[in-house]
Amino acid sequence: MDEMANTSPWEDDKPHEECGVVGIWGSADAAALAALGLHALQHRGQEAAGLVSMEESGIFHSHKGRGLVGDNFGDAAVIAGLPGRAAVGHNRYATTGETALRNVQPLYADFEFGGFAVAHNGNLTNAHTLKRALVRRGCLFQSTTDSEVFVHLIAISLYSTVTDRLIDALKQVQGAYSLVALHNGALLGARDPLGVRPLVIGRLPAGGFVLASETCALDIVGAEFVRDVEPGEIVVIDDAGLRSQKPFAKQPSRFCIFEYIYFARPDSIVEGTPVYDTRKRIGAELARESGVAADVIVPVPDSGVPAAMGYAVEAGLPFELGIIRNHYVGRTFIEPTDQIRHLGVKLKHSANRAIIEGRRVVLVDDSIVRGTTSRKIVEMVRAAGATEVHMRISSPPTTHSCFYGIDTPERSKLLAAKHDVAEMAKIIGADSLAFISLDGLYRALGRPGRDAASPAYCDACFTGDYAIPLLDQQDNAQRPVSLLAAANS
Amino acid sequence: MDEMANTSPWEDDKPHEECGVVGIWGSADAAALAALGLHALQHRGQEAAGLVSMEESGIFHSHKGRGLVGDNFGDAAVIAGLPGRAAVGHNRYATTGETALRNVQPLYADFEFGGFAVAHNGNLTNAHTLKRALVRRGCLFQSTTDSEVFVHLIAISLYSTVTDRLIDALKQVQGAYSLVALHNGALLGARDPLGVRPLVIGRLPAGGFVLASETCALDIVGAEFVRDVEPGEIVVIDDAGLRSQKPFAKQPSRFCIFEYIYFARPDSIVEGTPVYDTRKRIGAELARESGVAADVIVPVPDSGVPAAMGYAVEAGLPFELGIIRNHYVGRTFIEPTDQIRHLGVKLKHSANRAIIEGRRVVLVDDSIVRGTTSRKIVEMVRAAGATEVHMRISSPPTTHSCFYGIDTPERSKLLAAKHDVAEMAKIIGADSLAFISLDGLYRALGRPGRDAASPAYCDACFTGDYAIPLLDQQDNAQRPVSLLAAANS
Amino acid sequence: MDEMANTSPWEDDKPHEECGVVGIWGSADAAALAALGLHALQHRGQEAAGLVSMEESGIFHSHKGRGLVGDNFGDAAVIAGLPGRAAVGHNRYATTGETALRNVQPLYADFEFGGFAVAHNGNLTNAHTLKRALVRRGCLFQSTTDSEVFVHLIAISLYSTVTDRLIDALKQVQGAYSLVALHNGALLGARDPLGVRPLVIGRLPAGGFVLASETCALDIVGAEFVRDVEPGEIVVIDDAGLRSQKPFAKQPSRFCIFEYIYFARPDSIVEGTPVYDTRKRIGAELARESGVAADVIVPVPDSGVPAAMGYAVEAGLPFELGIIRNHYVGRTFIEPTDQIRHLGVKLKHSANRAIIEGRRVVLVDDSIVRGTTSRKIVEMVRAAGATEVHMRISSPPTTHSCFYGIDTPERSKLLAAKHDVAEMAKIIGADSLAFISLDGLYRALGRPGRDAASPAYCDACFTGDYAIPLLDQQDNAQRPVSLLAAANS
Amino acid sequence: MDEMANTSPWEDDKPHEECGVVGIWGSADAAALAALGLHALQHRGQEAAGLVSMEESGIFHSHKGRGLVGDNFGDAAVIAGLPGRAAVGHNRYATTGETALRNVQPLYADFEFGGFAVAHNGNLTNAHTLKRALVRRGCLFQSTTDSEVFVHLIAISLYSTVTDRLIDALKQVQGAYSLVALHNGALLGARDPLGVRPLVIGRLPAGGFVLASETCALDIVGAEFVRDVEPGEIVVIDDAGLRSQKPFAKQPSRFCIFEYIYFARPDSIVEGTPVYDTRKRIGAELARESGVAADVIVPVPDSGVPAAMGYAVEAGLPFELGIIRNHYVGRTFIEPTDQIRHLGVKLKHSANRAIIEGRRVVLVDDSIVRGTTSRKIVEMVRAAGATEVHMRISSPPTTHSCFYGIDTPERSKLLAAKHDVAEMAKIIGADSLAFISLDGLYRALGRPGRDAASPAYCDACFTGDYAIPLLDQQDNAQRPVSLLAAANS
Repeated sequence: MDEMANTSPWEDDKPHEECGVVGIWGSADAAALAALGLHALQHRGQEAAGLVSMEESGIFHSHKGRGLVGDNFGDAAVIAGLPGRAAVGHNRYATTGETALRNVQPLYADFEFGGFAVAHNGNLTNAHTLKRALVRRGCLFQSTTDSEVFVHLIAISLYSTVTDRLIDALKQVQGAYSLVALHNGALLGARDPLGVRPLVIGRLPAGGFVLASETCALDIVGAEFVRDVEPGEIVVIDDAGLRSQKPFAKQPSRFCIFEYIYFARPDSIVEGTPVYDTRKRIGAELARESGVAADVIVPVPDSGVPAAMGYAVEAGLPFELGIIRNHYVGRTFIEPTDQIRHLGVKLKHSANRAIIEGRRVVLVDDSIVRGTTSRKIVEMVRAAGATEVHMRISSPPTTHSCFYGIDTPERSKLLAAKHDVAEMAKIIGADSLAFISLDGLYRALGRPGRDAASPAYCDACFTGDYAIPLLDQQDNAQRPVSLLAAANS
Repeated sequence: MDEMANTSPWEDDKPHEECGVVGIWGSADAAALAALGLHALQHRGQEAAGLVSMEESGIFHSHKGRGLVGDNFGDAAVIAGLPGRAAVGHNRYATTGETALRNVQPLYADFEFGGFAVAHNGNLTNAHTLKRALVRRGCLFQSTTDSEVFVHLIAISLYSTVTDRLIDALKQVQGAYSLVALHNGALLGARDPLGVRPLVIGRLPAGGFVLASETCALDIVGAEFVRDVEPGEIVVIDDAGLRSQKPFAKQPSRFCIFEYIYFARPDSIVEGTPVYDTRKRIGAELARESGVAADVIVPVPDSGVPAAMGYAVEAGLPFELGIIRNHYVGRTFIEPTDQIRHLGVKLKHSANRAIIEGRRVVLVDDSIVRGTTSRKIVEMVRAAGATEVHMRISSPPTTHSCFYGIDTPERSKLLAAKHDVAEMAKIIGADSLAFISLDGLYRALGRPGRDAASPAYCDACFTGDYAIPLLDQQDNAQRPVSLLAAANS
Repeated sequence: MDEMANTSPWEDDKPHEECGVVGIWGSADAAALAALGLHALQHRGQEAAGLVSMEESGIFHSHKGRGLVGDNFGDAAVIAGLPGRAAVGHNRYATTGETALRNVQPLYADFEFGGFAVAHNGNLTNAHTLKRALVRRGCLFQSTTDSEVFVHLIAISLYSTVTDRLIDALKQVQGAYSLVALHNGALLGARDPLGVRPLVIGRLPAGGFVLASETCALDIVGAEFVRDVEPGEIVVIDDAGLRSQKPFAKQPSRFCIFEYIYFARPDSIVEGTPVYDTRKRIGAELARESGVAADVIVPVPDSGVPAAMGYAVEAGLPFELGIIRNHYVGRTFIEPTDQIRHLGVKLKHSANRAIIEGRRVVLVDDSIVRGTTSRKIVEMVRAAGATEVHMRISSPPTTHSCFYGIDTPERSKLLAAKHDVAEMAKIIGADSLAFISLDGLYRALGRPGRDAASPAYCDACFTGDYAIPLLDQQDNAQRPVSLLAAANS
Repeated sequence: MDEMANTSPWEDDKPHEECGVVGIWGSADAAALAALGLHALQHRGQEAAGLVSMEESGIFHSHKGRGLVGDNFGDAAVIAGLPGRAAVGHNRYATTGETALRNVQPLYADFEFGGFAVAHNGNLTNAHTLKRALVRRGCLFQSTTDSEVFVHLIAISLYSTVTDRLIDALKQVQGAYSLVALHNGALLGARDPLGVRPLVIGRLPAGGFVLASETCALDIVGAEFVRDVEPGEIVVIDDAGLRSQKPFAKQPSRFCIFEYIYFARPDSIVEGTPVYDTRKRIGAELARESGVAADVIVPVPDSGVPAAMGYAVEAGLPFELGIIRNHYVGRTFIEPTDQIRHLGVKLKHSANRAIIEGRRVVLVDDSIVRGTTSRKIVEMVRAAGATEVHMRISSPPTTHSCFYGIDTPERSKLLAAKHDVAEMAKIIGADSLAFISLDGLYRALGRPGRDAASPAYCDACFTGDYAIPLLDQQDNAQRPVSLLAAANS
């Protein structure tokens, strides 16, 4: 797999967040504010975006499109077509081949009680099982998203209020979810009992509420941060204010540790701590754990920058932009001939020879997934004249796939699942390679280290400790041949 | 309403057929043959076309698109993407604003028993009532077509075989329907108990079956006409051959009389009679009933041609192409200024002055719906120098709307619902106007006249005698405000 | 070559007119009227359409597009973007692969004296020779159309008035041309000295002039026919009225005889005679020359209809629509498999079995070019049960290519260039085949017969008598390898 | 003017480079290498890209498109359509409204001697004057680019070799130009006598040459830097190697100083010095000249980063990413309501509150053009809690427009043309504002200071010292009304 064909979701060899959500209640500009919030959350999903607004009469309006928020919602006429004082929105990151518009959220349905829209960040681990049962009952699925399961469970629930139907549905699903939903009566927000994915509450300056995946979506609309939606909490927002329900038994939470390392925007505040600061602390910890004699600290842009800065300060070495990122890559670039392939061209990055030539370079990056990009970057830095190339990674080795809403390759494709660190160094061509330790990572997050009995975070991708059962995984062998080929138009 | 804005479904002031269907069983070229059949049925719907094919393994494939069959299925690669020995297809005519792809048939669903595809010509008269009940039960509707009701009724049916589930569904619906359906086991065809809409059975030269709305779709694929599907009959076609089921009590049939007058292609054979011959006989009857001293008989092209030929022969007057049709109208033409509007431009027709100037002209057309086009044509013929203009119509006055699958305006827009023939003549500017009588029409169809106690055809658009109850019509007042605005993307 | 792949300009096996032109002077609705005129001339070219309008200040505006006039100029906003009291327009029929927008006329250029736009129907026979000389002089060509030669010749002319520059240019070109041109001062119209292609003058009801290829374009805008532009005449139209210049020595004219047979619209008046009447007279002459015992006369629609009517009346036999035309063919239809190919499907036509079965049929068509369609039609009619099939053609055998503005295949592809009539009958599978004689054709046009010393019409396609020298044809051998591959974007 | 409507070329309030060029000679992968070179030069122009390749037979191929290089040339099929061992390419930055495809370079023409393609970075100052003279002579212009003047001058030149014709043309033009051209014989490169715009020569590893605007385009294809094309030099590259011609009188060169400050990519080497280093030195000089008591140094990303790093090191203050850039802005974003407008939303930037709150912040940016973005950024940083905001700019005040190939607003829109530094500080809302001095800038570039008698660089945008006469500017008053409105399709 090669960067040249950068239409692949994997071309940059990073895990990928699978979505951002936003909800607005109580503003005449609901759709516009939701669009701005989605724009601020664009890093969580770039393949499609959708908005559903609701007028006070209960009439809903929807607009969805492939591509960026600005491409789909930048036009004032589109926003004008989404009237109402409430709205929910969704950014989608999708695995290859499945961004048919019918899969773009928010999902909408006409229920007996009126319209209902829902947007979901996360991944259900018993979606297939539930889906099979629902189909047997006569439910017709229209999308291939997990999230449609919520909609059917709500549709067939025997409870009378929408909130009770939602709780009824949440009690049947397993997995990671932060979701926002809208019906003629309230804006709802919910997080799974372990609180794997984030969801925060904000207050608009002129009154009204915002729900969003990260605080950066509050900042862009001038909203004040109120608090996180708590793990297992359902918040019900209407004109009377915000009420909370906690239908699940209390459990220790397991927030996704990778949000700190890579996913969240550096200017977001997560659980009270600025992400940017956290990353610098991780870099400093990394320098303490695996310092090496060198001349210059160079980040792999852009995500490696804060950790590299923390590393450089701790190590007392100069921090320099030794790799330049090209911001204009375009949709695609296919290597047309063997000769071009041999050039090993990096389309997104170029080495800044003036910084690198004749120096011992420490490269700081946040993760290695399959290793393809790391190998190319090391090769590029060496070709630019580095005398030594040391790679330092601000996360532990990624040895397991995520099933809770992050797009990672299957385990067999993960470099760290098959090789020890020494082998990995060889494969990527570095003179040395080091990852931060699990305990070091927890320390940088202000913990004494990882408590194996009750870890404070979901770190399954580094440990294989899956806190939520993986029902569909066990179940997959018995699945019948999929009929979905039919729905390809 | 004016012809210039010819994007409207009503620009030509004709009733519009709402669909054509085709099904193929037992040919390696199933999708290609179905596409050819749809092409032959293109006159029944031009807004969208869809095909679903099925491989013997039960894998389905689907392709749909707006526009003509040739535009969507002319490419060999598209046909190659629809493998299998069975296929069903559909041409859609849709009222303005509602040709979202999700409404384009065949509809497809994954059931517990496997995939299922259905294509429907007709209109249900209790669709809203059924839909409301289904939503109350937790069913989620994705399209705004009547036809989705079939799919949900089949999904929730407690019968075990697909045929029994279909019969279960048919027993709950009311209205006009000719449908073809496909599942891993059989190709199904069904007509409503009154047989309002047509459906015929053909046999492919190399074996295999065809179901289609008209015989012209058999001709194009070289299939031999076997017989009509009978009113109330369900045919089940599989590799063992064709079986028939008749689950409904026998009733006198009521085939749509307008198929003879206008909808069916002139080269189709309907109930054993060539449509072309029938139209000439109607023209001759019209000449006998309402002959007038004149110099030349001129058809309003293209649909008025056979009736005009029959009229001319009977009247012993020359038949001439006094109106020329422009075949290249394009998608749209908006009159930009008042002056242009005053030109009264006819974009589809032009008068052939050499034929018309100084002559008494009899124009023969098949129907007058709102009268707008008739008025323009009379004006154009007069402007070209006709000394008299007599309009003869090969159908009785259209006084009522159709609820059985034909797109007609609401009753208040029908010229004949508000005016007698003398007033209509004045409105359209003709020196005289005459319609064929109801009895004359029945005579031209080989009947002794209309038997009011048990009419041989559905002629509700001329008589208001609606043989199938109009449940949704009575029910409409109580409907809640629609929430469908939400689904506009 | 097969009808299934109907993207080819040759799919219908007819010669193709290469253009229609229109010019308007002196109306506030100039662009709208020009668009309507182009719509009426749509049969002369369907691949692209263009309009250039001129404001009184000398500012020009242009809009061009591929496809039909209605598709490109139907939108009022487009017309609003073409202000001014004068306009010229062009419909393009183009041979395959060369309808880049830069080739769509009218051509426009900024000259020293201001803007200039020109639209041209016809073909120059010394275009290549002139182009080579112009390139040698430093002229840069932007299109691959002959017509650009006019623009460069005008640009480099040393005369001072635009009219003199145009005459200077016309004296250097050879070939067939009817053109309209516009500059800040006048609307110009010109026909070549032999008057091969048509051009007529009309007067708008509210004042102002129209120039157009046919009278049907006058009718649609309510203009009164004034007269033809004469062969070799240049008309100069400005607010003072119409002036005429005749810079060429007088010669006997040679109007294209195929305009009567096929190209012109039946409701156009050409040289004082209605085209529709002429075609009926040709049919009658054909019946006299080559009558045959038969039961029914069937036109090949749509162009064969008037000749068939004339034939039927003369022969005293019934005229019936034994072949039905499908008006909705779409852009393309490729036969995906051998089996489908063996069906010999006719997508545009279907046999009306009720008319044909058991009968001796005379088919009347206007021409046979390569014979492919004729063979398929005869086969189709025979398959529908005709006991005999006789083909009658309302033109003489097409034995030569046209170089004067009609798109015909090269001579080696013309059936009649290689085979005598008996062989042709065999090839197309007819029981008998007859063409009208040359003298018969001239008689139908009101002449005593063809005067070989000075034929009244250009009939080169039937006789090889090319009245205008074919310089480029002789010259082609010496042409260097074309460099035009470069301009493919 | 506001960032929300970021379709404007001015939304980021930066000057804009108007183009990048590349030429390849002697590689079977010529088009692919040229495309990679254009990708590396994408920062010089993002609106359109074009490539012309040449086969050894003298056949040229061309492909152009709006948008990024990757969007237009990423597809292997496109590259396969551009065969040959030589190619020239161009990235276009265009002022609003004028990126019709006919303006996208390389320009191509068929000359008497064969095909010729040219791509141009720069701006001619006597283009209008020359164009008028050429039109008077009969030349027809097809684009509205300056660069077409070259093509016509070459076309009409009386010299016999292409190189002599090019020199003949260059002697008639005035202005700034770096150009690459291709004909059947050689790849040509030329720089204007003052060498205002850059052009470098590289050698491919397998033999063959590259010409490109910057060295980063050599790096991406693995080419070795040979030397700059010298001011006033024409290089002629063919299979025999590289020859040089210097037809102009030797003058002191005046390379564009803004290339160092902002345009060139930080990893490019310009005149032997790495741009990245230069920017850090400018930042250090700025700190020396106008240090201020503060807590943190924050770059305005991305262009302000190296100067901020240099400043921070010199000032001994922490360098932090206090402003986060959103990389996914999309094509457009229009503020739909007043309330949204009042939010003062920055779509590209967000403040990193954790870094800024409670601190005295020094912002480092590279230039202030109109001041709109600076004002918003200061406001945003203050809203994030900065106690003081000091703005430091790594260029002198931009007081004059550029006429040599950089898109700047007219002088009246330049903030520094109307206000002194104190007023500017007030307008942008900063507690203090300082620009680097002209002498300080020259010092950072290794000069003793600016020599007013013979400045080493073109610094007209800071000084108004225009080294090349601005003929068209003086001439503009007499220009006739443009006729170009005609060419809008």
